[in-house]
Amino acid sequence: MSDYLSMEKNALEAEFESLKAKYDEYKAQGLDLNMSRGVPGVDQLELSLPMLDVITSDSEFLSVSGNDCRNYGIIDGIIEIKEIFAEMLGVSVENVFVGGNSSLNMMFDTIACFNEKGIGGEKPWFSQGRIKFLCPSPGYDRHFGVTGYFGNIEMVTVPMTETGPDMDIVEKYVENDPTVKGIWCVPKYSNPDGITYSDETVRRFAALKPAAKDFRIMWDNAYCIHDITDTPDTLLNLFEECKKTGNEDLPIMFCSTSKITFPGAGVAALAASKANLEVLLKRYSLQTIGHDKMNMLRHVRFFNNYEGVLAHMQKHKALLAPRFKLVDSKLTEHLGDTGIAEWRKPNGGYFVSVYVLNGCAKKVVQLCKEAGISLTNAGATYPYGLDPNDSNIRIAPTYPPMNDLQNALDIFCICTKLAAAEKLLGK
Amino acid sequence: MSDYLSMEKNALEAEFESLKAKYDEYKAQGLDLNMSRGVPGVDQLELSLPMLDVITSDSEFLSVSGNDCRNYGIIDGIIEIKEIFAEMLGVSVENVFVGGNSSLNMMFDTIACFNEKGIGGEKPWFSQGRIKFLCPSPGYDRHFGVTGYFGNIEMVTVPMTETGPDMDIVEKYVENDPTVKGIWCVPKYSNPDGITYSDETVRRFAALKPAAKDFRIMWDNAYCIHDITDTPDTLLNLFEECKKTGNEDLPIMFCSTSKITFPGAGVAALAASKANLEVLLKRYSLQTIGHDKMNMLRHVRFFNNYEGVLAHMQKHKALLAPRFKLVDSKLTEHLGDTGIAEWRKPNGGYFVSVYVLNGCAKKVVQLCKEAGISLTNAGATYPYGLDPNDSNIRIAPTYPPMNDLQNALDIFCICTKLAAAEKLLGK
Repeated sequence: MSDYLSMEKNALEAEFESLKAKYDEYKAQGLDLNMSRGVPGVDQLELSLPMLDVITSDSEFLSVSGNDCRNYGIIDGIIEIKEIFAEMLGVSVENVFVGGNSSLNMMFDTIACFNEKGIGGEKPWFSQGRIKFLCPSPGYDRHFGVTGYFGNIEMVTVPMTETGPDMDIVEKYVENDPTVKGIWCVPKYSNPDGITYSDETVRRFAALKPAAKDFRIMWDNAYCIHDITDTPDTLLNLFEECKKTGNEDLPIMFCSTSKITFPGAGVAALAASKANLEVLLKRYSLQTIGHDKMNMLRHVRFFNNYEGVLAHMQKHKALLAPRFKLVDSKLTEHLGDTGIAEWRKPNGGYFVSVYVLNGCAKKVVQLCKEAGISLTNAGATYPYGLDPNDSNIRIAPTYPPMNDLQNALDIFCICTKLAAAEKLLGK
Repeated sequence: MSDYLSMEKNALEAEFESLKAKYDEYKAQGLDLNMSRGVPGVDQLELSLPMLDVITSDSEFLSVSGNDCRNYGIIDGIIEIKEIFAEMLGVSVENVFVGGNSSLNMMFDTIACFNEKGIGGEKPWFSQGRIKFLCPSPGYDRHFGVTGYFGNIEMVTVPMTETGPDMDIVEKYVENDPTVKGIWCVPKYSNPDGITYSDETVRRFAALKPAAKDFRIMWDNAYCIHDITDTPDTLLNLFEECKKTGNEDLPIMFCSTSKITFPGAGVAALAASKANLEVLLKRYSLQTIGHDKMNMLRHVRFFNNYEGVLAHMQKHKALLAPRFKLVDSKLTEHLGDTGIAEWRKPNGGYFVSVYVLNGCAKKVVQLCKEAGISLTNAGATYPYGLDPNDSNIRIAPTYPPMNDLQNALDIFCICTKLAAAEKLLGK
């Protein structure tokens, strides 16, 4: 394997022709493989099948508080599931609010709430004109989708580093610009880079002195216990750090069991300070009479406690580890010394973030698509879909069967090389 | 039993003393009975227990469209449950959107959506200054809670008549005032009166020529199949009528299985025109990746089809009929010819609406409370909690066991008489 960047033009031309031939062969197979979204595989879904047997017509339906989970009521979730989420998020039970099946929905509703009613005693965001949200990037496209929807929020790209968002830039914005009202964070195994924020990064978040009293950190801890190696990352507890700095009102934390039990039928939760919860609870108590307590009970009876959740995650790890190993070995095999791609080796999460030659990401995704491989749109990991380098591609290796994944990775690597060769040859 | 209004002062004084003695006896019993909310009784919940056995670890999880209900995806609900809701709401499948466990949540989100983004090509409601919603009253307190929350919506009380909202007033407002953007309707077995809108009322809704292009009818068909007698009311299909008048964009219809299966774990749906759905779907597709499809599947497998739902409702009817009979017979026994109370005999729904002597509702509710009987707050059935006559009280007879209900009704009647006597005596 040669370094494309130092290859002679003739050699590169020959390489291009050979790649093109291979690519056309694959294309002729009419494949239909999907590496686009962080969707658990069927083998992972099967881990939670016994959960479907713990609630039957013979069950007891009372929560420990004595409420019948079949009936109306309990706006913030049954106490026994709050206890599990409290441990998962590292907060006290009284800071937890349990919702429906989607943490994204809770994030959306949180932004909607602050837009409508304000937070921290300040005016509604909707009445403050244009406001800003910091978006560490590459990041989660659905976060950008939420902030982009409302029309009043400008998204500001902040670069990711090995230790989390570039905190010099974060501090500069947050502490000087009162129109900066929030930041999106996936602090552990970030989407897509798989980066876990360093202790220093978390401490700097806790120590922020925001220019706006209604600045909030959207702490989407989607992969808090989603390790895929035996050397998992550890994340400092932001809520505890914020207590030390008197900044308990800064974070709104989110998580769910979507990637623990069933993506279509999990349970989501948020954690926040008493003052923040009060504002959110007022809205929720008018919005609904209560979320699905039967599904909360089903989860509690299946796991028993937080230790049960952690034991369950070991089973996911066993299924996911070989997939992530395959990605790394395929990328190494095909792209290792080409100089046209870099990628990360995350210890958890759902993605492998690949950086192809600048200016080539869109082309790679398009070539893949034409060969029957679906990838997340190039650029999707940046606000407004604009990757300044047109370089980042998010690979989601969890859903396809292993054989398909192998094929898809082979083709992805050919497309990456083909696009690079084409670019370097000025075609 | 005598007519209080024509009783001699001395006789009324004696009656008052005798009532007071009875009341104090009840009060001394330290009861704790609840007739406050439309909550199904435990016997009703047990009707749906078999639904908990239809999805187990051995089940098939594919929807008819081939999607795995355990996993992410399908924003608008699986087709097989859309078919059931389409029949329930009297619309085509393509007009149905299936959500989570709460239709109230879908109503809240609908108002939020129109506030944020507008509807019918008009500017967002939030950017139009103060707007108005018509509130036929007495009505559902949670509707008023939703409209009251956002801060930009003024609620206008419209009187209810035997045939639905006073349509002369509705037409006058809707056709002349462009700041009137919506109206709340519970068209069948209205909450709390149990009134079903007449064919003429529905036709007049369909024939409205709103001054505002973004006027919408919030058609909360919560009790569409919730009959309690063998002479059920029938409701004309608003969607069909609107097709005839070219007003298909007017109604947004809602229903749920909360009072069919489990209030805490049912499935909710809305129906709307293609143009309305497009605006709502855009928001939903950013707000969530999809609602709980496993619970949708559970409902479908339990009912098989709409006929299965209707057969199930017969079982609810059998349980509810005696309760509503008891309410009517108790009220007749104690208040029949007193001239100080009127009440309705609904053919369905969840409430009996009682009109006590003007100026006495608050007092009756307070007396009941002190004797251990919880009722919905007096006034709650009107916008801002203001009953102009201080007369309407909503009785919800579904939750308490029959013995408790009997006791609670005896006490309610005594309180009603006590408050009336006190008022008439000028005490």
